[in-house]
Amino acid sequence: MKSLNETIRKTIQDRNSLVCVGLDYHSDKVPLHIKEQSDPIFTFNKAIINATADLVCAYKPNLAFYEAYGAEGWDALERTVHYIPEGIIKIGDAKRGDIGSTAAKYADALFQIGFDVVTVNPYLGIDSITPFIKDPTRGVFILCLTSNPSSKDFQYLDIDGLPLHLHVAQKVNTWNDNDNCGLVVGATHPDELRSIRQMTPNLPFLIPGIGAQGGDLESSIKMGTDAKNSMAIINSSRGILFASSGLDFKEAAREEAQKLRDQINTFRERATSS
Amino acid sequence: MKSLNETIRKTIQDRNSLVCVGLDYHSDKVPLHIKEQSDPIFTFNKAIINATADLVCAYKPNLAFYEAYGAEGWDALERTVHYIPEGIIKIGDAKRGDIGSTAAKYADALFQIGFDVVTVNPYLGIDSITPFIKDPTRGVFILCLTSNPSSKDFQYLDIDGLPLHLHVAQKVNTWNDNDNCGLVVGATHPDELRSIRQMTPNLPFLIPGIGAQGGDLESSIKMGTDAKNSMAIINSSRGILFASSGLDFKEAAREEAQKLRDQINTFRERATSS
Repeated sequence: MKSLNETIRKTIQDRNSLVCVGLDYHSDKVPLHIKEQSDPIFTFNKAIINATADLVCAYKPNLAFYEAYGAEGWDALERTVHYIPEGIIKIGDAKRGDIGSTAAKYADALFQIGFDVVTVNPYLGIDSITPFIKDPTRGVFILCLTSNPSSKDFQYLDIDGLPLHLHVAQKVNTWNDNDNCGLVVGATHPDELRSIRQMTPNLPFLIPGIGAQGGDLESSIKMGTDAKNSMAIINSSRGILFASSGLDFKEAAREEAQKLRDQINTFRERATSS
Repeated sequence: MKSLNETIRKTIQDRNSLVCVGLDYHSDKVPLHIKEQSDPIFTFNKAIINATADLVCAYKPNLAFYEAYGAEGWDALERTVHYIPEGIIKIGDAKRGDIGSTAAKYADALFQIGFDVVTVNPYLGIDSITPFIKDPTRGVFILCLTSNPSSKDFQYLDIDGLPLHLHVAQKVNTWNDNDNCGLVVGATHPDELRSIRQMTPNLPFLIPGIGAQGGDLESSIKMGTDAKNSMAIINSSRGILFASSGLDFKEAAREEAQKLRDQINTFRERATSS
Protein backbone atom coordinates (compact mmCIF):
# COMPACT_ATOMS: atom_id res chain seq x y z
CA MET A 1 0.00 0.00 0.00
CA LYS A 2 1.25 3.48 -0.85
CA SER A 3 1.51 6.14 1.82
CA LEU A 4 -0.85 9.09 1.42
CA ASN A 5 1.96 11.37 0.33
CA GLU A 6 3.14 8.88 -2.31
CA THR A 7 -0.45 8.70 -3.56
CA ILE A 8 -0.60 12.49 -3.75
CA ARG A 9 2.65 12.61 -5.76
CA LYS A 10 1.54 9.88 -8.12
CA THR A 11 -1.93 11.34 -8.59
CA ILE A 12 -0.50 14.74 -9.51
CA GLN A 13 1.89 13.08 -11.94
CA ASP A 14 -0.64 10.74 -13.57
CA ARG A 15 -3.28 13.42 -13.94
CA ASN A 16 -0.82 16.22 -14.76
CA SER A 17 -2.83 18.62 -12.62
CA LEU A 18 -2.47 20.49 -9.35
CA VAL A 19 -6.10 21.63 -9.43
CA CYS A 20 -8.45 20.90 -6.56
CA VAL A 21 -12.09 21.93 -6.86
CA GLY A 22 -13.58 23.06 -3.55
CA LEU A 23 -17.10 21.63 -3.50
CA ASP A 24 -18.68 24.36 -1.38
CA TYR A 25 -22.40 24.39 -2.10
CA HIS A 26 -24.12 27.80 -1.83
CA SER A 27 -27.88 27.73 -2.39
CA ASP A 28 -27.87 31.42 -3.38
CA LYS A 29 -25.24 30.97 -6.08
CA VAL A 30 -26.24 27.77 -7.89
CA PRO A 31 -28.34 27.98 -11.06
CA LEU A 32 -32.07 28.31 -10.45
CA HIS A 33 -32.89 25.09 -12.31
CA ILE A 34 -30.65 23.18 -9.89
CA LYS A 35 -31.92 24.92 -6.80
CA GLU A 36 -35.48 23.91 -7.72
CA GLN A 37 -34.70 20.19 -7.81
CA SER A 38 -35.56 17.85 -4.96
CA ASP A 39 -31.91 16.93 -4.28
CA PRO A 40 -30.07 20.11 -5.25
CA ILE A 41 -26.77 19.66 -3.39
CA PHE A 42 -25.94 16.25 -4.80
CA THR A 43 -27.31 17.16 -8.23
CA PHE A 44 -25.06 20.20 -8.39
CA ASN A 45 -21.98 18.39 -7.12
CA LYS A 46 -22.49 15.48 -9.51
CA ALA A 47 -22.72 17.87 -12.46
CA ILE A 48 -19.54 19.69 -11.39
CA ILE A 49 -17.66 16.41 -10.89
CA ASN A 50 -18.80 15.08 -14.28
CA ALA A 51 -17.67 18.31 -15.93
CA THR A 52 -14.22 18.53 -14.31
CA ALA A 53 -13.04 15.07 -13.20
CA ASP A 54 -10.39 14.66 -15.94
CA LEU A 55 -8.87 18.05 -15.11
CA VAL A 56 -8.25 17.80 -11.38
CA CYS A 57 -6.12 15.90 -8.89
CA ALA A 58 -8.50 16.44 -5.95
CA TYR A 59 -11.93 17.50 -4.74
CA LYS A 60 -12.38 19.24 -1.41
CA PRO A 61 -15.81 19.64 0.14
CA ASN A 62 -15.75 22.03 3.11
CA LEU A 63 -18.00 20.50 5.75
CA ALA A 64 -19.48 23.82 6.87
CA PHE A 65 -21.45 24.05 3.65
CA TYR A 66 -23.09 20.68 4.32
CA GLU A 67 -23.64 21.04 8.07
CA ALA A 68 -25.57 24.21 7.23
CA TYR A 69 -28.25 21.86 5.79
CA GLY A 70 -28.34 19.54 8.81
CA ALA A 71 -28.87 15.80 8.38
CA GLU A 72 -29.86 16.31 4.74
CA GLY A 73 -26.61 18.13 4.04
CA TRP A 74 -24.62 15.40 5.72
CA ASP A 75 -26.32 12.79 3.58
CA ALA A 76 -25.59 14.78 0.41
CA LEU A 77 -21.95 15.06 1.49
CA GLU A 78 -21.63 11.29 1.88
CA ARG A 79 -23.13 10.63 -1.55
CA THR A 80 -20.88 13.29 -3.10
CA VAL A 81 -17.72 11.73 -1.70
CA HIS A 82 -18.79 8.29 -2.92
CA TYR A 83 -19.45 9.74 -6.35
CA ILE A 84 -15.90 11.08 -6.82
CA PRO A 85 -14.14 8.71 -9.24
CA GLU A 86 -11.31 6.43 -8.12
CA GLY A 87 -7.84 7.89 -8.46
CA ILE A 88 -8.83 11.41 -7.40
CA ILE A 89 -7.86 12.60 -3.92
CA LYS A 90 -10.79 13.27 -1.61
CA ILE A 91 -10.01 16.04 0.88
CA GLY A 92 -12.40 16.66 3.78
CA ASP A 93 -11.98 20.31 4.71
CA ALA A 94 -13.11 20.02 8.31
CA LYS A 95 -10.37 21.86 10.26
CA ARG A 96 -11.11 19.64 13.25
CA GLY A 97 -9.08 19.65 16.44
CA ASP A 98 -10.07 17.99 19.71
CA ILE A 99 -8.54 15.95 22.53
CA GLY A 100 -7.41 12.39 21.71
CA SER A 101 -10.54 10.34 22.44
CA THR A 102 -12.75 12.83 20.64
CA ALA A 103 -10.33 13.30 17.75
CA ALA A 104 -10.58 9.53 17.26
CA LYS A 105 -14.35 9.90 16.78
CA TYR A 106 -13.85 12.67 14.23
CA ALA A 107 -11.30 10.55 12.38
CA ASP A 108 -13.77 7.62 12.30
CA ALA A 109 -16.54 9.88 11.08
CA LEU A 110 -14.54 11.51 8.31
CA PHE A 111 -12.66 8.49 7.04
CA GLN A 112 -15.89 6.47 7.10
CA ILE A 113 -17.37 8.98 4.69
CA GLY A 114 -14.52 8.10 2.39
CA PHE A 115 -12.09 11.01 2.64
CA ASP A 116 -8.43 10.21 1.99
CA VAL A 117 -7.19 13.21 3.89
CA VAL A 118 -8.69 15.73 6.29
CA THR A 119 -7.69 19.28 7.27
CA VAL A 120 -6.98 19.68 10.99
CA ASN A 121 -6.05 22.50 13.35
CA PRO A 122 -2.70 22.29 15.18
CA TYR A 123 -3.64 24.24 18.35
CA LEU A 124 -4.22 21.11 20.50
CA GLY A 125 -0.97 19.44 19.46
CA ILE A 126 -0.14 15.89 18.45
CA ASP A 127 -2.86 14.13 20.54
CA SER A 128 -5.48 15.73 18.34
CA ILE A 129 -3.71 14.57 15.15
CA THR A 130 -2.61 11.02 16.04
CA PRO A 131 -5.94 9.29 15.27
CA PHE A 132 -5.85 10.77 11.76
CA ILE A 133 -2.32 9.58 10.90
CA LYS A 134 -2.21 6.04 12.27
CA ASP A 135 -3.05 4.54 8.91
CA PRO A 136 -0.30 5.61 6.45
CA THR A 137 -2.70 5.50 3.51
CA ARG A 138 -4.76 8.33 4.97
CA GLY A 139 -3.70 11.51 6.70
CA VAL A 140 -3.94 15.22 7.29
CA PHE A 141 -3.29 18.68 5.99
CA ILE A 142 -2.47 20.69 9.11
CA LEU A 143 -3.31 24.40 9.18
CA CYS A 144 -0.02 26.25 9.10
CA LEU A 145 -0.63 29.73 7.70
CA THR A 146 -4.22 30.44 6.71
CA SER A 147 -5.36 32.68 3.86
CA ASN A 148 -7.59 35.02 5.90
CA PRO A 149 -6.58 38.53 7.06
CA SER A 150 -6.68 37.71 10.79
CA SER A 151 -4.16 34.90 10.33
CA LYS A 152 -1.89 37.62 11.75
CA ASP A 153 -3.63 37.52 15.16
CA PHE A 154 -1.63 34.51 16.33
CA GLN A 155 0.12 32.80 13.40
CA TYR A 156 2.84 35.50 13.16
CA LEU A 157 3.63 35.76 16.87
CA ASP A 158 7.39 35.60 17.24
CA ILE A 159 8.86 32.77 19.31
CA ASP A 160 12.65 32.70 19.51
CA GLY A 161 12.95 34.48 16.19
CA LEU A 162 10.48 32.28 14.31
CA PRO A 163 6.81 32.99 13.72
CA LEU A 164 4.30 30.53 15.19
CA HIS A 165 3.44 29.16 11.74
CA LEU A 166 7.05 28.05 11.23
CA HIS A 167 7.02 26.35 14.62
CA VAL A 168 3.97 24.46 13.39
CA ALA A 169 5.77 23.52 10.16
CA GLN A 170 8.79 22.35 12.13
CA LYS A 171 6.64 20.14 14.38
CA VAL A 172 4.79 18.65 11.44
CA ASN A 173 8.11 17.48 9.97
CA THR A 174 8.57 15.44 13.16
CA TRP A 175 5.01 14.05 12.97
CA ASN A 176 5.44 12.74 9.42
CA ASP A 177 6.85 9.27 10.21
CA ASN A 178 4.06 7.62 8.23
CA ASP A 179 4.55 9.96 5.26
CA ASN A 180 0.98 11.20 5.52
CA CYS A 181 1.15 14.78 6.82
CA GLY A 182 0.85 17.96 4.79
CA LEU A 183 0.27 21.65 5.44
CA VAL A 184 -2.38 24.20 4.57
CA VAL A 185 -0.70 27.42 3.45
CA GLY A 186 -2.71 30.30 2.01
CA ALA A 187 -1.84 31.71 -1.42
CA THR A 188 -2.19 35.18 0.08
CA HIS A 189 1.28 34.96 1.71
CA PRO A 190 3.88 34.30 -1.05
CA ASP A 191 6.98 35.18 1.00
CA GLU A 192 5.94 33.01 3.89
CA LEU A 193 5.08 30.22 1.44
CA ARG A 194 8.73 30.25 0.44
CA SER A 195 9.99 30.00 4.05
CA ILE A 196 7.55 27.22 4.86
CA ARG A 197 8.59 25.29 1.72
CA GLN A 198 12.25 25.68 2.70
CA MET A 199 11.51 24.28 6.14
CA THR A 200 9.41 21.36 4.84
CA PRO A 201 10.81 20.45 1.43
CA ASN A 202 8.90 17.17 1.12
CA LEU A 203 5.44 17.80 2.55
CA PRO A 204 2.43 18.26 0.29
CA PHE A 205 0.82 21.69 0.58
CA LEU A 206 -2.86 22.44 0.19
CA ILE A 207 -3.01 26.03 -1.06
CA PRO A 208 -6.35 27.84 -0.84
CA GLY A 209 -6.83 31.55 -1.38
CA ILE A 210 -6.39 32.16 -5.12
CA GLY A 211 -9.31 33.87 -6.87
CA ALA A 212 -11.89 35.52 -4.60
CA GLN A 213 -9.40 35.83 -1.74
CA GLY A 214 -6.77 37.53 -3.91
CA GLY A 215 -3.82 35.13 -3.73
CA ASP A 216 -1.39 35.23 -6.66
CA LEU A 217 -1.25 32.03 -8.70
CA GLU A 218 2.21 32.35 -10.21
CA SER A 219 3.96 33.04 -6.93
CA SER A 220 1.99 30.24 -5.24
CA ILE A 221 3.35 27.78 -7.80
CA LYS A 222 6.87 29.19 -7.65
CA MET A 223 7.06 29.24 -3.86
CA GLY A 224 4.69 26.41 -2.96
CA THR A 225 5.75 23.48 -5.15
CA ASP A 226 8.59 21.15 -4.21
CA ALA A 227 11.90 20.67 -6.05
CA LYS A 228 10.08 18.67 -8.75
CA ASN A 229 7.37 21.31 -9.20
CA SER A 230 4.84 19.06 -7.56
CA MET A 231 3.29 18.46 -4.10
CA ALA A 232 1.19 21.61 -4.12
CA ILE A 233 -2.55 21.26 -4.49
CA ILE A 234 -4.15 24.51 -5.60
CA ASN A 235 -7.75 24.91 -4.52
CA SER A 236 -10.38 26.92 -6.35
CA SER A 237 -13.99 26.92 -5.20
CA ARG A 238 -16.20 29.82 -6.25
CA GLY A 239 -14.21 30.63 -9.44
CA ILE A 240 -15.07 27.22 -10.88
CA LEU A 241 -18.38 26.28 -9.25
CA PHE A 242 -20.15 29.55 -9.97
CA ALA A 243 -18.45 30.54 -13.23
CA SER A 244 -21.98 30.75 -14.63
CA SER A 245 -25.33 30.74 -12.89
CA GLY A 246 -27.13 29.77 -16.09
CA LEU A 247 -27.92 26.53 -17.89
CA ASP A 248 -24.31 26.45 -19.11
CA PHE A 249 -22.81 26.22 -15.60
CA LYS A 250 -21.20 22.84 -16.31
CA GLU A 251 -19.45 24.06 -19.46
CA ALA A 252 -18.38 27.26 -17.70
CA ALA A 253 -17.00 25.29 -14.74
CA ARG A 254 -15.09 23.00 -17.08
CA GLU A 255 -13.65 25.96 -18.96
CA GLU A 256 -12.43 27.61 -15.73
CA ALA A 257 -10.94 24.38 -14.39
CA GLN A 258 -9.13 23.78 -17.68
CA LYS A 259 -7.83 27.35 -17.77
CA LEU A 260 -6.57 27.03 -14.20
CA ARG A 261 -4.88 23.68 -14.83
CA ASP A 262 -3.17 24.99 -17.97
CA GLN A 263 -2.04 28.23 -16.32
CA ILE A 264 -0.61 26.26 -13.42
CA ASN A 265 1.21 23.88 -15.75
CA THR A 266 2.67 26.82 -17.67
CA PHE A 267 3.94 28.29 -14.39
CA ARG A 268 5.36 24.89 -13.38
CA GLU A 269 7.27 24.65 -16.68
CA ARG A 270 8.50 28.20 -16.29
CA ALA A 271 9.73 27.35 -12.78
CA THR A 272 11.55 24.27 -14.15
CA SER A 273 13.30 26.18 -16.91
CA SER A 274 14.26 29.18 -14.79
CA MET B 1 -32.44 40.90 25.66
CA LYS B 2 -29.65 39.70 27.93
CA SER B 3 -26.15 39.18 26.62
CA LEU B 4 -24.93 35.59 26.60
CA ASN B 5 -22.60 36.21 29.53
CA GLU B 6 -25.41 37.77 31.58
CA THR B 7 -27.53 34.72 30.79
CA ILE B 8 -24.72 32.43 31.94
CA ARG B 9 -24.37 34.35 35.21
CA LYS B 10 -28.11 34.34 35.84
CA THR B 11 -28.51 30.67 34.94
CA ILE B 12 -25.76 29.65 37.36
CA GLN B 13 -27.36 31.77 40.09
CA ASP B 14 -30.95 30.62 39.51
CA ARG B 15 -30.05 26.96 39.28
CA ASN B 16 -27.32 27.10 41.94
CA SER B 17 -25.16 24.79 39.86
CA LEU B 18 -21.94 24.95 37.87
CA VAL B 19 -22.45 21.46 36.47
CA CYS B 20 -22.50 20.83 32.75
CA VAL B 21 -23.21 17.33 31.48
CA GLY B 22 -21.26 16.47 28.33
CA LEU B 23 -23.68 14.51 26.16
CA ASP B 24 -21.10 12.36 24.40
CA TYR B 25 -22.84 9.23 23.17
CA HIS B 26 -20.69 6.06 23.05
CA SER B 27 -22.43 2.99 21.65
CA ASP B 28 -20.04 0.67 23.48
CA LYS B 29 -20.74 2.22 26.87
CA VAL B 30 -24.52 2.70 26.99
CA PRO B 31 -26.72 0.06 28.62
CA LEU B 32 -27.55 -2.86 26.35
CA HIS B 33 -31.31 -2.26 26.60
CA ILE B 34 -30.75 1.25 25.18
CA LYS B 35 -28.36 0.16 22.47
CA GLU B 36 -30.94 -2.33 21.19
CA GLN B 37 -33.62 0.32 20.63
CA SER B 38 -34.35 1.75 17.19
CA ASP B 39 -33.35 5.31 18.16
CA PRO B 40 -30.64 4.70 20.79
CA ILE B 41 -28.82 8.06 20.74
CA PHE B 42 -31.87 10.21 21.35
CA THR B 43 -33.39 7.66 23.75
CA PHE B 44 -30.24 7.68 25.86
CA ASN B 45 -29.85 11.47 25.81
CA LYS B 46 -33.51 12.01 26.72
CA ALA B 47 -33.18 9.68 29.70
CA ILE B 48 -30.02 11.46 30.90
CA ILE B 49 -31.64 14.88 30.49
CA ASN B 50 -34.77 13.79 32.35
CA ALA B 51 -32.65 12.43 35.18
CA THR B 52 -30.37 15.46 35.61
CA ALA B 53 -32.08 18.62 34.31
CA ASP B 54 -32.75 20.15 37.74
CA LEU B 55 -29.11 19.69 38.78
CA VAL B 56 -27.24 21.37 35.93
CA CYS B 57 -26.67 24.78 34.39
CA ALA B 58 -25.71 23.44 30.96
CA TYR B 59 -25.56 20.50 28.57
CA LYS B 60 -22.73 20.12 26.10
CA PRO B 61 -22.96 17.64 23.23
CA ASN B 62 -19.60 17.19 21.49
CA LEU B 63 -20.35 17.03 17.78
CA ALA B 64 -17.74 14.35 17.06
CA PHE B 65 -19.91 11.76 18.80
CA TYR B 66 -22.84 12.55 16.49
CA GLU B 67 -20.90 12.97 13.24
CA ALA B 68 -19.57 9.47 13.86
CA TYR B 69 -23.13 8.28 13.08
CA GLY B 70 -23.50 10.33 9.89
CA ALA B 71 -26.83 11.88 8.92
CA GLU B 72 -28.62 9.80 11.56
CA GLY B 73 -26.30 11.13 14.28
CA TRP B 74 -26.85 14.68 13.12
CA ASP B 75 -30.60 14.20 13.29
CA ALA B 76 -30.34 12.76 16.83
CA LEU B 77 -28.20 15.76 17.82
CA GLU B 78 -30.85 18.22 16.60
CA ARG B 79 -33.61 16.44 18.50
CA THR B 80 -31.44 16.28 21.62
CA VAL B 81 -30.77 20.02 21.59
CA HIS B 82 -34.48 20.76 21.11
CA TYR B 83 -35.28 18.48 24.00
CA ILE B 84 -33.12 20.37 26.52
CA PRO B 85 -35.51 22.38 28.72
CA GLU B 86 -35.66 26.19 28.55
CA GLY B 87 -33.38 27.99 30.95
CA ILE B 88 -30.48 25.56 30.58
CA ILE B 89 -27.46 26.64 28.52
CA LYS B 90 -26.90 24.62 25.36
CA ILE B 91 -23.21 24.40 24.49
CA GLY B 92 -22.19 23.01 21.09
CA ASP B 93 -18.73 21.56 21.56
CA ALA B 94 -17.60 21.85 17.96
CA LYS B 95 -14.16 23.52 18.21
CA ARG B 96 -14.68 25.01 14.78
CA GLY B 97 -12.34 27.50 13.15
CA ASP B 98 -12.39 28.56 9.50
CA ILE B 99 -12.03 31.68 7.35
CA GLY B 100 -14.78 34.31 7.59
CA SER B 101 -17.22 33.22 4.87
CA THR B 102 -16.99 29.58 5.96
CA ALA B 103 -17.15 30.40 9.66
CA ALA B 104 -20.43 32.16 8.90
CA LYS B 105 -21.81 28.88 7.53
CA TYR B 106 -20.69 27.01 10.65
CA ALA B 107 -22.31 29.66 12.84
CA ASP B 108 -25.57 29.34 10.86
CA ALA B 109 -25.46 25.56 11.14
CA LEU B 110 -24.79 25.45 14.87
CA PHE B 111 -27.09 28.24 16.00
CA GLN B 112 -29.85 26.86 13.78
CA ILE B 113 -29.64 23.61 15.73
CA GLY B 114 -30.40 25.70 18.79
CA PHE B 115 -27.06 26.06 20.59
CA ASP B 116 -26.62 29.19 22.71
CA VAL B 117 -22.86 29.03 22.60
CA VAL B 118 -20.28 27.13 20.60
CA THR B 119 -16.65 26.20 21.28
CA VAL B 120 -14.22 27.60 18.68
CA ASN B 121 -10.49 27.42 17.99
CA PRO B 122 -8.48 30.67 18.07
CA TYR B 123 -5.74 29.74 15.55
CA LEU B 124 -7.36 31.61 12.62
CA GLY B 125 -7.95 34.81 14.60
CA ILE B 126 -10.92 37.13 14.84
CA ASP B 127 -12.28 36.57 11.29
CA SER B 128 -13.11 33.02 12.27
CA ILE B 129 -14.93 34.15 15.44
CA THR B 130 -16.87 37.23 14.25
CA PRO B 131 -19.84 35.36 12.75
CA PHE B 132 -20.39 33.63 16.11
CA ILE B 133 -20.41 36.82 18.21
CA LYS B 134 -22.45 39.27 16.14
CA ASP B 135 -25.61 38.50 18.09
CA PRO B 136 -24.94 39.37 21.76
CA THR B 137 -27.40 36.72 22.98
CA ARG B 138 -25.23 33.95 21.54
CA GLY B 139 -21.49 33.49 21.52
CA VAL B 140 -18.39 31.43 21.97
CA PHE B 141 -16.07 29.63 24.32
CA ILE B 142 -12.65 30.03 22.73
CA LEU B 143 -10.03 27.34 23.29
CA CYS B 144 -7.37 28.86 25.51
CA LEU B 145 -5.58 26.04 27.34
CA THR B 146 -6.88 22.57 26.58
CA SER B 147 -6.95 19.63 28.99
CA ASN B 148 -4.96 17.16 26.86
CA PRO B 149 -1.26 16.31 27.39
CA SER B 150 -0.10 17.74 24.06
CA SER B 151 -1.58 21.14 24.87
CA LYS B 152 2.11 21.84 25.58
CA ASP B 153 3.08 21.47 21.89
CA PHE B 154 2.05 25.05 21.08
CA GLN B 155 -0.07 26.54 23.88
CA TYR B 156 2.94 27.10 26.17
CA LEU B 157 5.29 28.63 23.57
CA ASP B 158 6.76 31.75 25.09
CA ILE B 159 6.12 35.06 23.33
CA ASP B 160 7.60 38.12 25.02
CA GLY B 161 7.47 36.43 28.39
CA LEU B 162 3.88 35.20 28.09
CA PRO B 163 2.76 31.75 26.97
CA LEU B 164 0.61 31.58 23.84
CA HIS B 165 -2.50 30.70 25.86
CA LEU B 166 -2.25 34.01 27.76
CA HIS B 167 -1.91 35.88 24.46
CA VAL B 168 -5.14 34.18 23.44
CA ALA B 169 -6.80 35.20 26.73
CA GLN B 170 -5.60 38.79 26.26
CA LYS B 171 -7.02 38.96 22.73
CA VAL B 172 -10.35 37.50 23.82
CA ASN B 173 -10.73 40.34 26.34
CA THR B 174 -10.59 42.74 23.38
CA TRP B 175 -13.11 40.67 21.39
CA ASN B 176 -15.74 40.72 24.15
CA ASP B 177 -17.52 43.98 23.21
CA ASN B 178 -20.84 42.15 23.02
CA ASP B 179 -20.30 40.40 26.36
CA ASN B 180 -20.55 36.99 24.72
CA CYS B 181 -17.04 35.52 24.73
CA GLY B 182 -15.67 32.95 27.16
CA LEU B 183 -12.68 30.63 27.37
CA VAL B 184 -12.11 26.88 27.50
CA VAL B 185 -9.51 26.09 30.16
CA GLY B 186 -8.73 22.52 31.17
CA ALA B 187 -9.00 21.45 34.80
CA THR B 188 -5.67 19.66 34.37
CA HIS B 189 -3.73 22.97 34.67
CA PRO B 190 -4.62 24.59 38.05
CA ASP B 191 -1.74 27.11 38.15
CA GLU B 192 -2.41 28.31 34.65
CA LEU B 193 -6.12 28.50 35.45
CA ARG B 194 -5.22 31.07 38.09
CA SER B 195 -3.14 33.19 35.65
CA ILE B 196 -5.84 33.06 33.02
CA ARG B 197 -8.51 34.07 35.56
CA GLN B 198 -6.34 36.99 36.67
CA MET B 199 -6.01 38.16 33.08
CA THR B 200 -9.73 37.77 32.30
CA PRO B 201 -11.61 38.41 35.55
CA ASN B 202 -15.05 38.63 33.92
CA LEU B 203 -15.16 35.99 31.22
CA PRO B 204 -17.05 32.75 31.73
CA PHE B 205 -14.84 29.65 31.66
CA LEU B 206 -15.83 26.25 30.39
CA ILE B 207 -13.70 23.79 32.34
CA PRO B 208 -13.43 20.23 31.02
CA GLY B 209 -10.99 17.62 32.28
CA ILE B 210 -12.19 16.60 35.73
CA GLY B 211 -12.86 12.88 36.21
CA ALA B 212 -11.42 10.57 33.54
CA GLN B 213 -8.80 13.15 32.49
CA GLY B 214 -7.56 13.65 36.05
CA GLY B 215 -8.22 17.34 36.69
CA ASP B 216 -8.67 18.36 40.34
CA LEU B 217 -12.11 19.69 41.20
CA GLU B 218 -11.31 21.81 44.25
CA SER B 219 -8.47 23.71 42.59
CA SER B 220 -10.57 24.18 39.44
CA ILE B 221 -13.25 25.90 41.53
CA LYS B 222 -10.76 27.92 43.52
CA MET B 223 -8.76 29.11 40.51
CA GLY B 224 -11.41 29.08 37.82
CA THR B 225 -14.39 30.91 39.32
CA ASP B 226 -14.67 34.70 39.27
CA ALA B 227 -14.71 37.04 42.29
CA LYS B 228 -18.32 35.97 43.04
CA ASN B 229 -17.48 32.25 42.84
CA SER B 230 -19.38 31.99 39.61
CA MET B 231 -18.73 32.06 35.84
CA ALA B 232 -17.08 28.66 35.69
CA ILE B 233 -18.96 25.82 34.04
CA ILE B 234 -17.57 22.45 35.08
CA ASN B 235 -18.08 19.71 32.53
CA SER B 236 -18.42 16.05 33.30
CA SER B 237 -19.20 13.53 30.57
CA ARG B 238 -18.29 9.89 31.18
CA GLY B 239 -18.48 10.11 34.99
CA ILE B 240 -22.19 10.92 34.79
CA LEU B 241 -23.37 9.30 31.55
CA PHE B 242 -21.84 5.91 32.20
CA ALA B 243 -22.03 5.77 35.99
CA SER B 244 -23.90 2.50 35.47
CA SER B 245 -24.33 0.37 32.39
CA GLY B 246 -27.35 -1.39 33.87
CA LEU B 247 -31.07 -0.72 34.03
CA ASP B 248 -30.37 1.81 36.80
CA PHE B 249 -28.23 4.10 34.58
CA LYS B 250 -30.62 7.03 35.02
CA GLU B 251 -30.57 6.85 38.81
CA ALA B 252 -26.79 6.40 38.80
CA ALA B 253 -26.34 9.40 36.49
CA ARG B 254 -28.57 11.51 38.73
CA GLU B 255 -26.64 10.48 41.80
CA GLU B 256 -23.28 11.41 40.21
CA ALA B 257 -24.59 14.75 38.95
CA GLN B 258 -26.00 15.59 42.38
CA LYS B 259 -22.76 14.59 44.09
CA LEU B 260 -20.76 16.75 41.70
CA ARG B 261 -23.07 19.76 42.11
CA ASP B 262 -22.94 19.49 45.90
CA GLN B 263 -19.15 19.04 46.01
CA ILE B 264 -18.72 22.06 43.77
CA ASN B 265 -21.05 24.16 45.92
CA THR B 266 -19.15 23.15 49.04
CA PHE B 267 -15.90 24.23 47.40
CA ARG B 268 -17.52 27.50 46.31
CA GLU B 269 -18.62 28.23 49.88
CA ARG B 270 -15.19 27.33 51.19
CA ALA B 271 -13.63 29.75 48.68
CA THR B 272 -16.01 32.51 49.85
CA SER B 273 -15.26 32.02 53.51
CA SER B 274 -11.48 31.70 53.08
